Amino acid sequence: MHVALIRYTPDPELTIVAAARISTSPAQVTEHMAKLTPDQVGRQLCQLISMGHQSPLEHANFTFSIEGISRVTSHQLVRHRLASFTQQSQRFISVKGLEFVTPPTIAAVLEMRAKYVEAVQAAYELYSQMQEAGIPAEDARYVLPSALHTNLVMTMNARELLTTCALRLCLKAQWEIVELFEMVKTELKKVAPYLSADLRPKCYKLTYCDEAKSCGLFPTLSELTKTD
Amino acid sequence: MHVALIRYTPDPELTIVAAARISTSPAQVTEHMAKLTPDQVGRQLCQLISMGHQSPLEHANFTFSIEGISRVTSHQLVRHRLASFTQQSQRFISVKGLEFVTPPTIAAVLEMRAKYVEAVQAAYELYSQMQEAGIPAEDARYVLPSALHTNLVMTMNARELLTTCALRLCLKAQWEIVELFEMVKTELKKVAPYLSADLRPKCYKLTYCDEAKSCGLFPTLSELTKTD
Amino acid sequence: MHVALIRYTPDPELTIVAAARISTSPAQVTEHMAKLTPDQVGRQLCQLISMGHQSPLEHANFTFSIEGISRVTSHQLVRHRLASFTQQSQRFISVKGLEFVTPPTIAAVLEMRAKYVEAVQAAYELYSQMQEAGIPAEDARYVLPSALHTNLVMTMNARELLTTCALRLCLKAQWEIVELFEMVKTELKKVAPYLSADLRPKCYKLTYCDEAKSCGLFPTLSELTKTD
Amino acid sequence: MHVALIRYTPDPELTIVAAARISTSPAQVTEHMAKLTPDQVGRQLCQLISMGHQSPLEHANFTFSIEGISRVTSHQLVRHRLASFTQQSQRFISVKGLEFVTPPTIAAVLEMRAKYVEAVQAAYELYSQMQEAGIPAEDARYVLPSALHTNLVMTMNARELLTTCALRLCLKAQWEIVELFEMVKTELKKVAPYLSADLRPKCYKLTYCDEAKSCGLFPTLSELTKTD
Repeated sequence: MHVALIRYTPDPELTIVAAARISTSPAQVTEHMAKLTPDQVGRQLCQLISMGHQSPLEHANFTFSIEGISRVTSHQLVRHRLASFTQQSQRFISVKGLEFVTPPTIAAVLEMRAKYVEAVQAAYELYSQMQEAGIPAEDARYVLPSALHTNLVMTMNARELLTTCALRLCLKAQWEIVELFEMVKTELKKVAPYLSADLRPKCYKLTYCDEAKSCGLFPTLSELTKTD
Repeated sequence: MHVALIRYTPDPELTIVAAARISTSPAQVTEHMAKLTPDQVGRQLCQLISMGHQSPLEHANFTFSIEGISRVTSHQLVRHRLASFTQQSQRFISVKGLEFVTPPTIAAVLEMRAKYVEAVQAAYELYSQMQEAGIPAEDARYVLPSALHTNLVMTMNARELLTTCALRLCLKAQWEIVELFEMVKTELKKVAPYLSADLRPKCYKLTYCDEAKSCGLFPTLSELTKTD
Repeated sequence: MHVALIRYTPDPELTIVAAARISTSPAQVTEHMAKLTPDQVGRQLCQLISMGHQSPLEHANFTFSIEGISRVTSHQLVRHRLASFTQQSQRFISVKGLEFVTPPTIAAVLEMRAKYVEAVQAAYELYSQMQEAGIPAEDARYVLPSALHTNLVMTMNARELLTTCALRLCLKAQWEIVELFEMVKTELKKVAPYLSADLRPKCYKLTYCDEAKSCGLFPTLSELTKTD
Repeated sequence: MHVALIRYTPDPELTIVAAARISTSPAQVTEHMAKLTPDQVGRQLCQLISMGHQSPLEHANFTFSIEGISRVTSHQLVRHRLASFTQQSQRFISVKGLEFVTPPTIAAVLEMRAKYVEAVQAAYELYSQMQEAGIPAEDARYVLPSALHTNLVMTMNARELLTTCALRLCLKAQWEIVELFEMVKTELKKVAPYLSADLRPKCYKLTYCDEAKSCGLFPTLSELTKTD
């Protein structure tokens, strides 16, 4: 898996804070941009987030190249509807070169790992064979396992990154998508450090775990009540 | 594949037309609902659609049960972001009973069909075997082919049904998703006949084909210019 | 102000819970619908909401007629983007009969109230006069105060109702929009009692107040830390 | 009215075209970015738009400062839901200095213009007076006319700019919002000339006018049929 931030709104954190300011100050956004110090930007961004005044966060957008995730994960990823995706098509491109994800739990069991790799290879071979027999790539791909690599370009604004990471950095999320958003967070740190620091599982905002069973980071509400 | 309309806004077409009326008439929506005749509803619905005044179409919602489509198609389907989906999880449910889609082009070549079925069965067997070896279903599924059946509940409003069908009933769309929206159209006909009749490929609205090559239904713009 | 629920997805709470079930059970949504008891529906709906598994809530939609709110409030209302609105137009309808909102704080000061009513009436008179002089309604309306009544039809799904009420039932919200969503909640109670009970300010979910200053219902985080 | 493009995705047209390429080519988005010539970018962007393959257009975002529009127009503007807005609040800021829009049709009739200006001034004076009497700004503003200036920050992606301009550059749209999007188009020209050239009323794509009566730019469908 490879994740790279390829384009973003310049001065993303300044843009957010300056935009937020116009709702409570008569000055123009460009005046705010000229005057705000880095310290003020950091402090006020954290305040916006902690107070749930999140709409100005939409003015900063981030475009990522996401390479080498499985279609298991891409299927989950594109469920985030307040984001933009362009995905490599298996309709129009015949998959060249077999690349795929092996989940760690499979990699750990030698016998299973061998069978897994063999099965994925066999499927890919049949995929190629069917195309030689005249079956179009868009139909031959029905045999391909979900493990196969896919590439996407994803654009999300800062608000949606917060919401998505609140869900996908939770340890109850699927391991591959957790890994993906850890990399998104690392990339973001280079250009929006305050924002990146706030990309955290939802329990940090709630101050408790709202899942059926906690991972241990925060207690659940019923655990909290019990201890009181 | 099975598609059933399971819930919808009662009197969907009346609701749309009555809502549309309030923007240009001082009467309340309930008064319009009481007075509009079926004929008026039909006529004005068609007028709204042909004039592109589509926002009132959002007041009528339709919930479908979609069963037995491949994950190839569900992956495309959930890309429609102005819709609501709940999909059977392969994380929390271990797939029981092997059901899958065989594309017609594969079914037509006897030798390939046999190999295809065999490959899907082998993958499914390995999936079961891995789970017996203690690998969680959410990881074992990486070996499963995209052909496997999945079930969804989908809610879309009338406006989004129009937009989606404009794209997905086009013969350039993938055959399985065309089939799916043909069935959506048929289901809708029972409760919203005027609306159903307007679920058509985009070329009907454009009066020409904007794809690279036409299927023959409408000429492309460059074909139009040539004949003039 | 008058708010009426005019259309909705039949059996809204059953629809939500049955849809949610398909993600973790191999049965079809229609089977779940046939088997679920009212008690199960209530219990599981509350569980979905408290655990933040909210996407199935999108399958239940509610259409309201909203009459006699000010344009101050309609301007705020239409900022909720995951909802559908049709609003009475001041472009195409000339406002007939002067109806407007008087905020309680103005109504309470007799002298101000008299001046307020007079000013609104004077503006309305000039509006009529300008139209007689040939100025189109869409331009004459520039003189009309924000206090004037407007009517809308609004469709929101259960998930968005939860999100919107979390913000708009907070006492920090503007009084007229609080009143509006109190009426939405009352209307909803007739057909979706469990859901209606969960339409509450955001502090109930957070278990603390995330505004700068609490109304007293829940302490702020800094107040909580102080008392510990 | 003043419109300024204050932030945008760097190389917006290159970003769009490179993203679009990954769906039909095995290379990574960064490789496409490195290789594409300006000519190719221009040609392929036009092709994407003319063929209706618009989702890659979402990867380029544009943030505008919009100053001095009336609340008539801001109310319409925020109806575009696939966009982000931060607006100057009349709840939290007391309006200082009276600035407002006078529609040309009112400005043209001297007598009406005088009365209009007087009425707006009178309303503003009462607004100030009410606040001196202890009425909060958020209530006093009910008397303010829709003509008063407001400022916003707006972020829209290229796809939504196309869709919005298709509607709002149509001469059937309200004059002030037409003017606003003419200025958006002019601003965009500096950094995305191909895209800017495609910001046009919907009739250009349709090749006919779908309104009840044409402005003359393109004939309506019934006019087309008649002449054939």
